[in-house]
Amino acid sequence: MTYRVHVRVMPRAGLLDPQGQAVEHALSALGFAETRTVHVGRAVEIEVDAKSRDEAEARARLMCDRLLANPVTEDYQVEVEAD
Amino acid sequence: MTYRVHVRVMPRAGLLDPQGQAVEHALSALGFAETRTVHVGRAVEIEVDAKSRDEAEARARLMCDRLLANPVTEDYQVEVEAD
Repeated sequence: MTYRVHVRVMPRAGLLDPQGQAVEHALSALGFAETRTVHVGRAVEIEVDAKSRDEAEARARLMCDRLLANPVTEDYQVEVEAD
Repeated sequence: MTYRVHVRVMPRAGLLDPQGQAVEHALSALGFAETRTVHVGRAVEIEVDAKSRDEAEARARLMCDRLLANPVTEDYQVEVEAD
């Protein structure tokens, strides 16, 4: 079965996020006064063949550990889309 | 009230996604044979002051239209985190 997995890779809290700050400033310049902090990271969508949801999630986490995220500077979240 | 809004900006289906293809190849070179298509986009996390969830979502959509997404080449999805 094929599962669609959504991965979000974000800069770790407390580390520099210049892209997020740039967007924060741009939004405020555009008049969006209600925005507080903004963080920008990467969104990765992967179609994974797996026997179960859990297996798809486990494989996606392994992909994050091995390629998609920098373990020193980034955190990631994995979500398997409902069938 | 402050809502945390997750935005995913992805290359529109059918348009070139060289970053996604690069990740696809890298994953397959690392032995992840179970991956099919991969797409890479941006994840934006915004803290928004709003009176309601719906208002937070509407404002975030406006931010996407005005700044965060390219209306010609990208699609976006907005999710307001549960309180």
